[in-house]
Amino acid sequence: MATAPSVSYSNTVRLEVPAGGNAVSQLTSAVEASGGSVTGLDVTASGHERLRIDVTIAAASTDHARSIVEKLRGIEGVIVGKVSDRTFLMHLGGKIEMQSKHPIRNRDDLSMIYTPGVARVCMQIAENPEDARRLTIKRNSVAVVTDGSAVLGLGNIGPKAALPVMEGKAALFKRFAAIDAWPLCLDTQDTDTIVEIVKAIAPGFAGINLEDISAPRCFEIEARLREALDIPVFHDDQHGTAIVVLAALTNALRVVGKELGDVRVVMSGAGAAGTAILKLLIDAGVKHTVVADINGVVHSGRADLADVPPGTALRWIAENTNRDGLTGTLKDAVHGADVFIGVSAPDVIDGADVATMAPDAIVFALANPDPEVDPAAAREHAAVVATGRSDFPNQINNVLVFPGVFRGLLDAHSHTVNSEMMIAAARAIADVVHGDELNPNYIIPSVFNDRVAPAVADAVRDAAQAAGVTQPPTGGV
Amino acid sequence: MATAPSVSYSNTVRLEVPAGGNAVSQLTSAVEASGGSVTGLDVTASGHERLRIDVTIAAASTDHARSIVEKLRGIEGVIVGKVSDRTFLMHLGGKIEMQSKHPIRNRDDLSMIYTPGVARVCMQIAENPEDARRLTIKRNSVAVVTDGSAVLGLGNIGPKAALPVMEGKAALFKRFAAIDAWPLCLDTQDTDTIVEIVKAIAPGFAGINLEDISAPRCFEIEARLREALDIPVFHDDQHGTAIVVLAALTNALRVVGKELGDVRVVMSGAGAAGTAILKLLIDAGVKHTVVADINGVVHSGRADLADVPPGTALRWIAENTNRDGLTGTLKDAVHGADVFIGVSAPDVIDGADVATMAPDAIVFALANPDPEVDPAAAREHAAVVATGRSDFPNQINNVLVFPGVFRGLLDAHSHTVNSEMMIAAARAIADVVHGDELNPNYIIPSVFNDRVAPAVADAVRDAAQAAGVTQPPTGGV
Repeated sequence: MATAPSVSYSNTVRLEVPAGGNAVSQLTSAVEASGGSVTGLDVTASGHERLRIDVTIAAASTDHARSIVEKLRGIEGVIVGKVSDRTFLMHLGGKIEMQSKHPIRNRDDLSMIYTPGVARVCMQIAENPEDARRLTIKRNSVAVVTDGSAVLGLGNIGPKAALPVMEGKAALFKRFAAIDAWPLCLDTQDTDTIVEIVKAIAPGFAGINLEDISAPRCFEIEARLREALDIPVFHDDQHGTAIVVLAALTNALRVVGKELGDVRVVMSGAGAAGTAILKLLIDAGVKHTVVADINGVVHSGRADLADVPPGTALRWIAENTNRDGLTGTLKDAVHGADVFIGVSAPDVIDGADVATMAPDAIVFALANPDPEVDPAAAREHAAVVATGRSDFPNQINNVLVFPGVFRGLLDAHSHTVNSEMMIAAARAIADVVHGDELNPNYIIPSVFNDRVAPAVADAVRDAAQAAGVTQPPTGGV
Repeated sequence: MATAPSVSYSNTVRLEVPAGGNAVSQLTSAVEASGGSVTGLDVTASGHERLRIDVTIAAASTDHARSIVEKLRGIEGVIVGKVSDRTFLMHLGGKIEMQSKHPIRNRDDLSMIYTPGVARVCMQIAENPEDARRLTIKRNSVAVVTDGSAVLGLGNIGPKAALPVMEGKAALFKRFAAIDAWPLCLDTQDTDTIVEIVKAIAPGFAGINLEDISAPRCFEIEARLREALDIPVFHDDQHGTAIVVLAALTNALRVVGKELGDVRVVMSGAGAAGTAILKLLIDAGVKHTVVADINGVVHSGRADLADVPPGTALRWIAENTNRDGLTGTLKDAVHGADVFIGVSAPDVIDGADVATMAPDAIVFALANPDPEVDPAAAREHAAVVATGRSDFPNQINNVLVFPGVFRGLLDAHSHTVNSEMMIAAARAIADVVHGDELNPNYIIPSVFNDRVAPAVADAVRDAAQAAGVTQPPTGGV
């Protein structure tokens, strides 16, 4: 699949060129001939003989960016100076910071913010622990916790290398829901230790966002923490993805005029995201589900399932899906299915497989950066196609989910998060797309649609209050 | 000891009074007659019959504030409305927040701050872990870690009640040293667990500030973390206090013309602060030290020391102080001493004891809020007196220390913190007071002296680099 130039592979190249002649037009022609885009061109110094120009170029990959710079170097009279990667520039020194809400100008400020005044606030909380939500940052704080074991599609790159993602997540929490999130990247991948750590740090937070923790450990870690803590614990890779998939599927079914309870859904992938999607779809009313993993369709008679212990995700899948007892490969299962949802690997099916699906098929191919099926090929046979990519219509992106979900949980002072709240969040996202906007290329709102997070927050807050798992807000000063 | 009205016990009282007559002057007279101070008076609504007035009143204590309000209620024609505590108002919703450094306005911003661009930054760090200091928040982040076991003078009030202090600490880190600190209040007081947690969260931070952890656990926790981690670990209650005491003592000795190596120092208190002060004074060159705790002067023949295991702080004190083999009480030990340093309890000595000290005695009575000796009584016999209180001259306050110390450690990319760095920090604080400013009532700069933190940071950075425990800054983008 050809990839378009992207600002995420964007470099600013400092060049010196002869002042006369057509060097500048040669530069832009060279970039375009190489498949890049010039997104900015500033003359930063000018003389009779020479110009200094900063050219910002979007490329399709790191190698592509390098090859474009080499092309520029080959133009007669051009001297290539410093090449600055815009993405790296934005990461220098990190992307988030801590701010004090009050100025500390003098002794009076100090005596209220810190000692001796703070002692009275501490005693108030010691006597009434629920006042921590009123008199501290707890109310609006979320810990973004990872062990670096399954970061994006990059795998087990460890806690330090995971930090840029967690900072980005924290920045998104603030941008879309005014939440104060702080990253905690843990130098351990031991389940018991992670559970112990998150339990211990919980007093200062009103929610825990688990992030990029590999399966199957993520299931146990989340389950044990939900049991232990009185604040919500949400593994975004699972539930954020599940919620946005349910939202997209809700609207895709509206497009084709089918009902959740009637369709046969075939899924590729039984990892963290796949399992969570499956469970939420079932909770939302989907009755016919089939899951395939790398060993084919999951069914209770499958040889390799004999060794899988009870209580594991794969065992749960075997026991709760595939009521028709399908066997064989993913391609076999796709035949006649209404919905394909892939959270697995590139190119596991092709256009011909999509052609075997039921009329008005729906294909969500979410593997990133390369989907389970070429979306252009899928679109020839399916009524609705969605991917995880921003350069195709219908991007399934959990940035639509986690800010609003946590805003709602925090506003409700919720002690937990459950399926009802997640389904409410999915419905809220789906309903942001009005009936007159809905079409096969617009089933899901943009992440920059500013109605999404408030709608999700309202829905989750209401669902939490209806579930009776909230602490009523405490009074004034 | 009478206590002056303080803004830390400041309330804004909404009152309605008759528009005519002398009700307003009666109000202010009543506050003053009760020993409070009117620090603000705003007429917020006015009519022919009645005025609404918001009066802000500083009191000496919570009970005092209440009694003043009762006095106001007794004035004829005055109706007392809402009473708002200014300190509590400043704590509503917490005192710190997280901010994104970059706007996230559109898809381009998102693709650099988050996916897909962030993946390249992650891979860069995965391949070169030291780049975490360049491309993430690690470089400027400090974890403020407590278990809530010894918070201020309030004791074991737990992690939630400790949070306002930790937020205040974080705010001070930013105010005085532009450091991004985040509080972690741990719901455990188990030494092994705390060590394990702090080790695990270390990847995202460039320093650990331990805070308000009770002795003797604080010694073991700090020692084990220093051994395990490649970032500095600093228990502020110990070393922050030790550094500012050494700074104050350096200048007090300048005032009286004595040398560190010649004076006999008697200390009251063998807890976290006392032990750290003692060790730093010895490292700085003090040769004659005697420590007393609640059971009297510490000496190796003391009956209760037989049961103290080797390696403990008290055993260390017995083996490394009191070279003249003094026995008896604190009051006995004070006789003839040049310096008294109290980090213990109120009123353990009196003016008569100070009178028995050597000529030109120095008294640091640091118990808060009530010192080991009435500073006014001490001042009758001693040449220099300092306390931990802001309402006497010479306040010994570790706000002078921790921001600059961490700024220096972070700037040096230091892997640890040692005595040489602490002594350098103390000298830097002492030297901020110039020779022509130095006098018995001004041995230590104000916490708002903006030369302190940069001077401390420079000194600590230089000492860290001299010790060869730093990581050289990595290159550009």
